[in-house]
Amino acid sequence: MTKKMWSGRFEEASSSLLEEFNGSLPFDKKLYREDIAGSIAHATMLREVGILSADDVEKIIVALKQVEQEIDNGEFEFKISDEDIHMAIESRITEIIGDAGKKLHTARSRNDQVALDFRLYVLRNNRKIINLLIKLQQTLIDMAKNNIDTLLPGMTHLQHAQPINFAYHILAYVSMFKRDIERFESSIERNNISPIGCAALAGTPHRIDRNITASLLDFKSPSINCLDTVSDRDFALEILFNISTLFVHISRFAEELIIWSSYEFKFVTFSDAYSTGSSIMPQKKNPDVAELLRGKSGRVFGNMISLLTVMKGLPLAYNKDMQEDKEGVFDSVETAIISLKILEKAIATLKVNRENMAKACKTGHLTATDLADYLVKICNVPFREAHHITGRAVAEADKLNIDLSEMGYKKLQEIDDRIGSDVDEVLSLKNSMNSRKSFGGTSQEQTIKQIEFFELWLSGLEIK
Amino acid sequence: MTKKMWSGRFEEASSSLLEEFNGSLPFDKKLYREDIAGSIAHATMLREVGILSADDVEKIIVALKQVEQEIDNGEFEFKISDEDIHMAIESRITEIIGDAGKKLHTARSRNDQVALDFRLYVLRNNRKIINLLIKLQQTLIDMAKNNIDTLLPGMTHLQHAQPINFAYHILAYVSMFKRDIERFESSIERNNISPIGCAALAGTPHRIDRNITASLLDFKSPSINCLDTVSDRDFALEILFNISTLFVHISRFAEELIIWSSYEFKFVTFSDAYSTGSSIMPQKKNPDVAELLRGKSGRVFGNMISLLTVMKGLPLAYNKDMQEDKEGVFDSVETAIISLKILEKAIATLKVNRENMAKACKTGHLTATDLADYLVKICNVPFREAHHITGRAVAEADKLNIDLSEMGYKKLQEIDDRIGSDVDEVLSLKNSMNSRKSFGGTSQEQTIKQIEFFELWLSGLEIK
Amino acid sequence: MTKKMWSGRFEEASSSLLEEFNGSLPFDKKLYREDIAGSIAHATMLREVGILSADDVEKIIVALKQVEQEIDNGEFEFKISDEDIHMAIESRITEIIGDAGKKLHTARSRNDQVALDFRLYVLRNNRKIINLLIKLQQTLIDMAKNNIDTLLPGMTHLQHAQPINFAYHILAYVSMFKRDIERFESSIERNNISPIGCAALAGTPHRIDRNITASLLDFKSPSINCLDTVSDRDFALEILFNISTLFVHISRFAEELIIWSSYEFKFVTFSDAYSTGSSIMPQKKNPDVAELLRGKSGRVFGNMISLLTVMKGLPLAYNKDMQEDKEGVFDSVETAIISLKILEKAIATLKVNRENMAKACKTGHLTATDLADYLVKICNVPFREAHHITGRAVAEADKLNIDLSEMGYKKLQEIDDRIGSDVDEVLSLKNSMNSRKSFGGTSQEQTIKQIEFFELWLSGLEIK
Amino acid sequence: MTKKMWSGRFEEASSSLLEEFNGSLPFDKKLYREDIAGSIAHATMLREVGILSADDVEKIIVALKQVEQEIDNGEFEFKISDEDIHMAIESRITEIIGDAGKKLHTARSRNDQVALDFRLYVLRNNRKIINLLIKLQQTLIDMAKNNIDTLLPGMTHLQHAQPINFAYHILAYVSMFKRDIERFESSIERNNISPIGCAALAGTPHRIDRNITASLLDFKSPSINCLDTVSDRDFALEILFNISTLFVHISRFAEELIIWSSYEFKFVTFSDAYSTGSSIMPQKKNPDVAELLRGKSGRVFGNMISLLTVMKGLPLAYNKDMQEDKEGVFDSVETAIISLKILEKAIATLKVNRENMAKACKTGHLTATDLADYLVKICNVPFREAHHITGRAVAEADKLNIDLSEMGYKKLQEIDDRIGSDVDEVLSLKNSMNSRKSFGGTSQEQTIKQIEFFELWLSGLEIK
Repeated sequence: MTKKMWSGRFEEASSSLLEEFNGSLPFDKKLYREDIAGSIAHATMLREVGILSADDVEKIIVALKQVEQEIDNGEFEFKISDEDIHMAIESRITEIIGDAGKKLHTARSRNDQVALDFRLYVLRNNRKIINLLIKLQQTLIDMAKNNIDTLLPGMTHLQHAQPINFAYHILAYVSMFKRDIERFESSIERNNISPIGCAALAGTPHRIDRNITASLLDFKSPSINCLDTVSDRDFALEILFNISTLFVHISRFAEELIIWSSYEFKFVTFSDAYSTGSSIMPQKKNPDVAELLRGKSGRVFGNMISLLTVMKGLPLAYNKDMQEDKEGVFDSVETAIISLKILEKAIATLKVNRENMAKACKTGHLTATDLADYLVKICNVPFREAHHITGRAVAEADKLNIDLSEMGYKKLQEIDDRIGSDVDEVLSLKNSMNSRKSFGGTSQEQTIKQIEFFELWLSGLEIK
Repeated sequence: MTKKMWSGRFEEASSSLLEEFNGSLPFDKKLYREDIAGSIAHATMLREVGILSADDVEKIIVALKQVEQEIDNGEFEFKISDEDIHMAIESRITEIIGDAGKKLHTARSRNDQVALDFRLYVLRNNRKIINLLIKLQQTLIDMAKNNIDTLLPGMTHLQHAQPINFAYHILAYVSMFKRDIERFESSIERNNISPIGCAALAGTPHRIDRNITASLLDFKSPSINCLDTVSDRDFALEILFNISTLFVHISRFAEELIIWSSYEFKFVTFSDAYSTGSSIMPQKKNPDVAELLRGKSGRVFGNMISLLTVMKGLPLAYNKDMQEDKEGVFDSVETAIISLKILEKAIATLKVNRENMAKACKTGHLTATDLADYLVKICNVPFREAHHITGRAVAEADKLNIDLSEMGYKKLQEIDDRIGSDVDEVLSLKNSMNSRKSFGGTSQEQTIKQIEFFELWLSGLEIK
Repeated sequence: MTKKMWSGRFEEASSSLLEEFNGSLPFDKKLYREDIAGSIAHATMLREVGILSADDVEKIIVALKQVEQEIDNGEFEFKISDEDIHMAIESRITEIIGDAGKKLHTARSRNDQVALDFRLYVLRNNRKIINLLIKLQQTLIDMAKNNIDTLLPGMTHLQHAQPINFAYHILAYVSMFKRDIERFESSIERNNISPIGCAALAGTPHRIDRNITASLLDFKSPSINCLDTVSDRDFALEILFNISTLFVHISRFAEELIIWSSYEFKFVTFSDAYSTGSSIMPQKKNPDVAELLRGKSGRVFGNMISLLTVMKGLPLAYNKDMQEDKEGVFDSVETAIISLKILEKAIATLKVNRENMAKACKTGHLTATDLADYLVKICNVPFREAHHITGRAVAEADKLNIDLSEMGYKKLQEIDDRIGSDVDEVLSLKNSMNSRKSFGGTSQEQTIKQIEFFELWLSGLEIK
Repeated sequence: MTKKMWSGRFEEASSSLLEEFNGSLPFDKKLYREDIAGSIAHATMLREVGILSADDVEKIIVALKQVEQEIDNGEFEFKISDEDIHMAIESRITEIIGDAGKKLHTARSRNDQVALDFRLYVLRNNRKIINLLIKLQQTLIDMAKNNIDTLLPGMTHLQHAQPINFAYHILAYVSMFKRDIERFESSIERNNISPIGCAALAGTPHRIDRNITASLLDFKSPSINCLDTVSDRDFALEILFNISTLFVHISRFAEELIIWSSYEFKFVTFSDAYSTGSSIMPQKKNPDVAELLRGKSGRVFGNMISLLTVMKGLPLAYNKDMQEDKEGVFDSVETAIISLKILEKAIATLKVNRENMAKACKTGHLTATDLADYLVKICNVPFREAHHITGRAVAEADKLNIDLSEMGYKKLQEIDDRIGSDVDEVLSLKNSMNSRKSFGGTSQEQTIKQIEFFELWLSGLEIK
């Protein structure tokens, strides 16, 4: 039981169970850098506007930097009785510099410190995730460049549909991750607003200048309504959603990698460095990385629902429920970071089994659509009829146990005599793939254009 | 049991249970306008590039418009055997114009029709929600303008904290809804990309021009990778998230309206037209509208989790799971639309009980922070010590059963003799509120600036 | 704008927008049978205890039955101004029998009608789902019985692990669905408590007898605390969770069926009656049923989160938010019912491709664990060392491009000379499967025991 | 980069990033007691059936107990290269006793160790939560006993509805927590099934006896199908759901405590030991405990969605995704435990402000229903008409600015002359409350019966 900073009017000390339940220090200590940066900006501003003396502010800043070093070096003693990182740091600087330390809290409240630290953390990690996504994009584009003439069966419903090239398939993910990058960037842009100086909920009578602190901390501007600001967590919901959508994409990729690694598919092989074995089955080589990537969608979806649930129906302004905002965001951010790192490595070291992909193209009548299109374009058959004729050709091929691409025009003429010998070329797998020259299509020509497009776009981004 | 368009190679007819389970017509018929618009654009493009004759295309377009009219007028017969709205419309135009109708499906697939119709629906409704939010903002700003000198207790933890004005409180919601508008706009911007022409997954060998269709349908450009496009549902996830965040804000407002309507608070009174009674308790007047608004957060959060769950781990490209994308989006969109309408009406007709708000300000020692600030600024006491002195003053006021704002300087001097008679002015509620002149604060001066800011911003938006 | 039953003290009529927003009739009309059954029980009880005359009650009951018939026959006119099914029915019977109809609402409130109708619906549908699960279990057990000697590769991480029989694999699902049945039954047992007679929140001063109504409606007993009862929705959360867990199992099964239907696996083939084709690719035969079953997990998870969100933080007792409880439950229940029906049919007509399963067993060194176990049991090698030796054998087999089961003892002796010729028998696929005789294992002997166990258990259940 | 137990056939060492990503040791070390208990049971069984020598088993058990002590005392060195707690313990016992240690893994797999340890943890914590709930129930019942004649306004829609007693209100929560206890118990009963001996997925050829291990570990029986067992996480989903439902109840209670603590209500006052203050507003006393309890519903809902998402669509049997099962369960369990502890303490020390509750009863016309009932019962007016008359009486009372309970029969007769002077007694608050004598109602008579019912039920439970 310890005496709290706010205990002036309290008759009983708080219980140790309350301290454990109520304190955020065990997790918010992660925000010490943001808190110290915020305090330095606040103190600097207080000096600029003449609220604190240059002398006091210098002492405060020196002490804050000392505390940062202490925490960096693991020498700082965190006490649960300090409740949170804000108090922990303030107590310590008061220990170091005495009364000057007590003046730091002039014209601010813990509510706006919390709002500031957490926002800085989220903005910084949006950027970090963008950087890792850029790296992943480069690796994927490299993989695409190496696989422009790697045929594989394009699928819908996990059924063979049409022949595509593997580069084109990889570029679908590049396209998804591009949207992810755009979402993270849009969120930074929208939320790059300074909360500092909002005090508890209503602003402060002190003659502070919020433009100074905003500018010192690289914000675009101070926020417009303090009551909103101290209880705004939209920026946190956004990063949770953006990470969730990122994991929709990652989990889809992971699912494909898992299926492609099966004995039945064998389209790809993970490097030993990114695979694991079994404690009981010595032959096993498991795609654990991909499975974990897929599974981690669970925690990031859950973290988003958690914060939505917390925020639902809260009256203005700050309520203690909002202390529940951090752990989920920390978890999603850390999950995104390590997942992007390992996905990039796993892709960079992945073996693409081109022959198996090519072999797979010879089952499933991948060029059936080409036959239908041929009937439409060359034989002038309405599409719906062409579809039916092709259905019959496929059934015949199945009976003969051969693939449509290898059936030969003679057998096809038996089904419909409008079919000519030129159909053989149309039904070749590679020709089929290359025939899809419409914008955004799978032909090599179009695939190369897509690579150029993505490379150009990527060259315009910078890792900050 | 009916014969399907794709039944060429099938030996058995599909079961009626399958038809019921599999068909999307009961819900996707809502997309008929989008589907017809897409078909007209597609046919027009096919004519431009010379794939279909001008004659056929004219017939097709006339038939499509006839079908639109039939559906508009409730004269169209939907048959479950048609599976989906795309087939329903195509069947009907073939009925009307014969073979020309069958040619419409040239160079496209249901997959890209689904992708197109749904995207058009989502884009259109993002805009509709923005329009309703703009209307709500205007009503809120009007309410704010009328309440710049309405004092009420600003709260944190649902406890009286500091005196604020009611306009300032309302502007906190204006600030939230501003971010909502920005999110919906950002989503339109990011997803205003044409999927049409992607065909099943790989593009098409037909010499289509996707720029034409994109431009006819007001898209910024055609999509870059068709494999991604046919299974991209990011735009749908975004609207589900943006509506969820909107409902975080709405539910917070609703919670406050409910609490404020209680007998104990009586800060506001709903108009009879937006209240309901009880079947058993004749005295009841219930804030049902606000409760439903709060409760509807449940369905919109749930709809978002639904689609995230559906999309998790799906291999490329289209899988039938994705048919589950629509109902939740329809439900969230319709919920948002009616909720915004009714919230606007309920606010426009809300009675603000100024006297009750004012009376409430006289409990809870709302000016305690002012006393602490006075001690810091005038008496040069370090903040932490000032906090403790104020704590004692509050305890004393509690014993005397009066509010700190009415305690008078003499009693305060007994607690700390550095306090002067000028403290009385500082502790007045209105002065306290008006003292918070920092940017974004609650003083009338700042509140007026905020109103001007929001009005200026709003004047730059247009209802499209 | 219409006059409401509760409008006594209201000065303004309610808005038509409010009627649309507030009314539950569009969805709760589904509860008309439950509502009428409840009213009959209530009226009967009121007669028994002497509150209503026998004459009035007879009129009421006749009218209620007439209304039920009218709704059954689609002749009943639902008016949105009636708000909900309770009012709709009461208005109608008052139309039919005049003042006697008005007496029905004596000693009850809409709150306890809502609580009753919804609980009856949930209890009834728990039972319906159990019945469908029993039917599915029978079909699965039949399938198991036909496949006791069908070898397939047992997998972990979607990698070949050990040879198992297909019956054993199917029984894993029987085991899951058994737990599902137990959960639905446990929920019925726990929630079979009558809410009727709780009135608005506090009970009633009328001398009603809640045991009579409870017994007439087949409840175990009346509820113990009315304040809890009118706002208890645990029974609804339970069915939403139990359906969600059911869909975890269904989605796992569906995923396997989809993968097994791929060209690469071809372990199973859906009957044409439960497959669909493509509008553009004539060769496609898609496992849509399985995909939809997998995808429907999304909506049922979402429905559960919706109701949890609604109920979170609601003060006692009834709040209008709770009107949001029904649509999600209706949707999950109807989803479960049609899904179980179609899954049963799809399974009953599924073709099991035994040869493909058998062929697949010859890749992936499924008997590697057997070699390790042989080394432990016969050669007395510690397990960890045996694991390493086997790892080397597998690597060697890979180099030779043969399966471990076909490697022969001579080659194995080169790796470790403790290996004898008896190893060949150990490494045969069928022997391997049959060697797993531990309780619950995959040997045919154990598989048969499991079938007997499940059949015995099933014979103890009845379809009610 | 370290050599793994399963590295026999691997050519490259695993990357350190993979180790960090893949390893579960940082969180599953929490399961060391369960793992050691399982290993002791497994070893004991291996001795009983003659697979291991008594000598080896003795060494193993001694070593296992030593390891347990080492971990208990914080002397155990956890190495990330050990991947998980199972390997960490096995490595260490092999270090201690050499080859005998290597024999422990005979006839088992990590998959069944994971399944065992996690299930034991969940079962044990179901019990722990029940114990804490029992304690909470006792405290609530004590509070109820002290408040049988404490009047407060019963509410619906947060509006005054009817007078009830505070004991009755508290018993509503006792009733909810009773269902919670029943759910946790039902889950123990259903899942008290031993997974040990299932090996990787198919059972084992070793002649193990699963009944022995089941019995040594206090399970009801061994599981029936091993393939199901190694990937069954229903027991984990159940505890996540049961904790979520518990938090629906806790969050409702918390919401009421927060509202009741507001200046406007002041129905209750938290003890200083369970309240906190503000860093900036010295007069604040915040109900942080209740707010955190309400907010923690977010994390437990999120944890449930996480695991549902993870399990959705996983093929049999074990997949690495399932490693994501633990952290969420640990978090929900620990949240439930500390929350129940602190809720019990906060309730036990809560001050009930009876006078404020009583005063509040005099607004809102709580006895309006009584007037309507009086009209029905005494004056023989049909209920619907009575409802309208009462509505007018309430409107009149509002105009006179008095409460209906204090209006007096004379004024009421002006509204309807069938009303007699006996109405005054009917409209008294206490009489109104006590008139609700129907089973489960709020009259003191019924409230006392409810207390007796719950006490009897509670006396039948034991804290195990």
